[in-house]
Amino acid sequence: MKASQFFISTLKEAPADAEIVSHQLMTRAGMIKKLGAGVYTYMPMGLRVIRKVEAIVREEMNRAGAVEVTMPVVQPAELWQETGRFDKMGPELLRIKDRHDRDFIIQPTSEEVVTDIARQELRSYKQLPKNFYQVQTKFRDERRPRFGLMRGREFIMKDAYSFDRSPEAAKASYQGMAQAYRRIFDRFGLRYRAVAADSGAIGGDLSEEFQVIAATGEDAIVYNPSSDYAANIEKAEAAAPTQPRPAASQALTRTPTPGKSTCEDVAALLNIPLATTVKSLVLATDTQDEQGEVVKTQVWLLLLRGDHDMNEVKVGKLPGLAGFRFATPAEIEAAFGAKPGYLGPVGLQAPVKVVADRDVAVMADWVCGANEVDVHLTGVNWGRDLPEPDLIADLRNVVAGDRAPDGPGELAIERGIEIGHVFYLGTKYSLPMNATFLDEDGKPKPFEMGCYGIGITRLPAAAIEQNHDERGMIWPDAIAPFTVVICPIGMDRSDAVKQAAEALHDELAGAGVDVLLDDRGERPGAMFADWELIGVPHRVVISDRGLKEGQLEYQHRRDAEAQKVPAQGIGDWLKAKLGV
Amino acid sequence: MKASQFFISTLKEAPADAEIVSHQLMTRAGMIKKLGAGVYTYMPMGLRVIRKVEAIVREEMNRAGAVEVTMPVVQPAELWQETGRFDKMGPELLRIKDRHDRDFIIQPTSEEVVTDIARQELRSYKQLPKNFYQVQTKFRDERRPRFGLMRGREFIMKDAYSFDRSPEAAKASYQGMAQAYRRIFDRFGLRYRAVAADSGAIGGDLSEEFQVIAATGEDAIVYNPSSDYAANIEKAEAAAPTQPRPAASQALTRTPTPGKSTCEDVAALLNIPLATTVKSLVLATDTQDEQGEVVKTQVWLLLLRGDHDMNEVKVGKLPGLAGFRFATPAEIEAAFGAKPGYLGPVGLQAPVKVVADRDVAVMADWVCGANEVDVHLTGVNWGRDLPEPDLIADLRNVVAGDRAPDGPGELAIERGIEIGHVFYLGTKYSLPMNATFLDEDGKPKPFEMGCYGIGITRLPAAAIEQNHDERGMIWPDAIAPFTVVICPIGMDRSDAVKQAAEALHDELAGAGVDVLLDDRGERPGAMFADWELIGVPHRVVISDRGLKEGQLEYQHRRDAEAQKVPAQGIGDWLKAKLGV
Repeated sequence: MKASQFFISTLKEAPADAEIVSHQLMTRAGMIKKLGAGVYTYMPMGLRVIRKVEAIVREEMNRAGAVEVTMPVVQPAELWQETGRFDKMGPELLRIKDRHDRDFIIQPTSEEVVTDIARQELRSYKQLPKNFYQVQTKFRDERRPRFGLMRGREFIMKDAYSFDRSPEAAKASYQGMAQAYRRIFDRFGLRYRAVAADSGAIGGDLSEEFQVIAATGEDAIVYNPSSDYAANIEKAEAAAPTQPRPAASQALTRTPTPGKSTCEDVAALLNIPLATTVKSLVLATDTQDEQGEVVKTQVWLLLLRGDHDMNEVKVGKLPGLAGFRFATPAEIEAAFGAKPGYLGPVGLQAPVKVVADRDVAVMADWVCGANEVDVHLTGVNWGRDLPEPDLIADLRNVVAGDRAPDGPGELAIERGIEIGHVFYLGTKYSLPMNATFLDEDGKPKPFEMGCYGIGITRLPAAAIEQNHDERGMIWPDAIAPFTVVICPIGMDRSDAVKQAAEALHDELAGAGVDVLLDDRGERPGAMFADWELIGVPHRVVISDRGLKEGQLEYQHRRDAEAQKVPAQGIGDWLKAKLGV
Repeated sequence: MKASQFFISTLKEAPADAEIVSHQLMTRAGMIKKLGAGVYTYMPMGLRVIRKVEAIVREEMNRAGAVEVTMPVVQPAELWQETGRFDKMGPELLRIKDRHDRDFIIQPTSEEVVTDIARQELRSYKQLPKNFYQVQTKFRDERRPRFGLMRGREFIMKDAYSFDRSPEAAKASYQGMAQAYRRIFDRFGLRYRAVAADSGAIGGDLSEEFQVIAATGEDAIVYNPSSDYAANIEKAEAAAPTQPRPAASQALTRTPTPGKSTCEDVAALLNIPLATTVKSLVLATDTQDEQGEVVKTQVWLLLLRGDHDMNEVKVGKLPGLAGFRFATPAEIEAAFGAKPGYLGPVGLQAPVKVVADRDVAVMADWVCGANEVDVHLTGVNWGRDLPEPDLIADLRNVVAGDRAPDGPGELAIERGIEIGHVFYLGTKYSLPMNATFLDEDGKPKPFEMGCYGIGITRLPAAAIEQNHDERGMIWPDAIAPFTVVICPIGMDRSDAVKQAAEALHDELAGAGVDVLLDDRGERPGAMFADWELIGVPHRVVISDRGLKEGQLEYQHRRDAEAQKVPAQGIGDWLKAKLGV
């Protein structure tokens, strides 16, 4: 393609609301154009990347045996009422009324619609397994859309849904999709990790996120450099301590700590390691009667080491703690007779239940609040100063350097951007929607389902977060807007340059290379700046001076400098480099 | 592809709500699945057709120099308020409020958004002409969605918008698009006509519809078989009569016509040709003051030959008749002293203005109502019995056999389905949105625009309306869900059949032919019925008996019978037939 037939529009400055580099660079490179909060037009340069992402996803989904459909963007509310999601979902579900005042929604995903299709179309076990997917516009009315395509309201998602006759078959379908996702992400040419994720109410281990590694990622990814283990921070298990609890060596002491209400402040004041302090978190759980009235409230005290953070997902799975909330100041005052910042487990009266993190349970001579403002206790010891905890469990986020839970090695943590998710659903949708098939025994059974998403329009943003420098983006070949850009110098003045540029363009295009000839007539500095910003991986510069020497200049976007390449045979040289 | 890796779901019966053949057949063939009124899932078989339509459209739009973008489905109301369409458009514009109670719409088209992009991006005449297009989901909240994909609420449309610096340049862009549309429609392999259409408030001749010819079409297409002239019925001009008005030969006579209130009934009663009667239509136009109060109402009497119908578009363009309405019964009673069915122009008092169709103006000895119930006048003559009309004009729809307005020949009429529309917009959107560029003289000027639509999801329905028989659909090669289907008989019992089928499949697929091997193991009758319903154009049957004779059976979907073809070289024979 020639630039004169395309649309190139670059900006020197990023818009003020672009907080992250991918948003800044995509806007500056003319890839996206904001229409409203979280709503973007995909401009020609950006759409090329999106189309390449879609093509790779489609090829691998088809290869994996999934069949493409397209479900409506605007969906009647009835199906969403069958699963209860019409009411249960928050305001991120965009609800509409049509001219006849009937309720509709704009699809954020399509579990209900695809399950409705399955219950009509898949009548026999002989038709299973079946996997339907679509690449379709989605809308989620985020409270605070931002970061460009990273957290938009309207976006394109590939969503797939598998239907199977048994949990075992569904798990095989799930594994097939997880494999297809690895092929897809390998083809994108990005560094990524497939990490175990929490599967929420469904349970089991069948949920994996595909995270593109980037320092700016929102998610913390935990992995064991010595093994394949990887999990997101919500899911990653803190290995149980192996050392026994040391014997007590200090006396229990009331220590004034005026104004020091955090573990960090107390450790600094007393000049002790933060890991010798214990933080107290107070939760509450409510028991409701059939009318939804709260008839009983249980207060819980969670103890974590001062240098550790609570993991809400893990805590929510402990017996009795499903649906927990943080206790109110009044509840804390009533239970502890003290204010947050000076709480602790010593001298507690019932009915507070004490849950200790596994690392806290093996501590001796520790420090915690004295349930008295401006006072802490030091030299605290289990058994001697307070009863053993009601429950010992893994309550915390892992930290770098923790012993790996899967064997030898220490955990490392890096940041990632979630781009894909595979999920075993079981009968979560098929049961409430009464979506059944006739099994071999002639009896109706609910489908065992899985769902599988890829954020098509988020992927380019993640790729940029991972691959950029101070001059702009750096695309992997597979999803670059163009693979090769030819930059002729003085094409309007030199027939030799014009002919060489057009000959190379035609040769590469004829070989199926996605090549752009920049025939805009921009000066070299502006032209190079544009292509460094846009991040086309391979650049060839053709100049009169070079041609006289029989040389062209080639530079990969990651190279510090251009290299001279013989003009003769440059087409073959490039094709060999690109593997075409 | 093999059927076992695809999804095939056919029905014997069409749903009760499917009124037209394309809706019936697409549903029976498992191409679409209704989710709600006017909202359909595109199932795998249907999506293949849609994707082929999209691919042809994209190729030709790119070839014509248009550049693809994707504008959001959900659009903020602000831009729509700039042009006034947010308020002016009726309930077919789906309006939404987001979680912050801000107004949005779902795009029915994207003139506002693309004009907003142009006013930001196209700053200089040097950047013009430019044409942006998209293939994107649209929504129009039709009062009565029906006919499957023919009149759905959610649909896919290709919409393109051109930006130029002058009307002349815009017209050149328009002509370029009209040419591209001809290439697109030629490639679809359908019979179609490009017909002149009314360009409404913009004026001029720069509006053409692309109509797929089908007996079931909603639109009447007028054409001259002796020339290139074609127009839709709204636009087609009735040639002015060439014969002079004959002299009066009958006396004016009051004739009782009890209960005969239509021209047809009167002509039958009096045993005279319908073309000697004149029908009276009473219209009204209101003059409003600045507050929108009606300060004056003018009543109009339109006279048409009894065998002619009024053309509302033509009437609306006459001086004084813009925005006309039909008169109320009270207004008619007041002006004529009689009821509809017995009205006429004789003996009228002011202030009724009389407008005669050109064909009525040259009639003598005609018949019309007497402004008295159950009475008509015969032998009516202009000049003698009533004054000449205030205005003589083309008021009517043409009819088959009318003299062509463009030269020799008689007009013919056939039915069509509108699939594409090219339209010169002028400054209709750029002026209210203040969308300007800097022209060569350094002054800002509004863009001259054009818009160009193709109904992507409507096209398959139109193709079926044109091409079907009692057994099902008949697809042109270019947009068939599969080009070739291989039907093996007893593939599970015969290795020879299996090998021959798979070898042919692999050979054709390797040559880029879109081929499906039906390995479902259906019995021949059911298998053939499926593929005749689905309408794949080329079918090859492979059986043991045939193989023993060295023969396969080939049948085009339009052929009455299969022909025997040597098994040896069948791949080359087919490829030659398909031109690959």
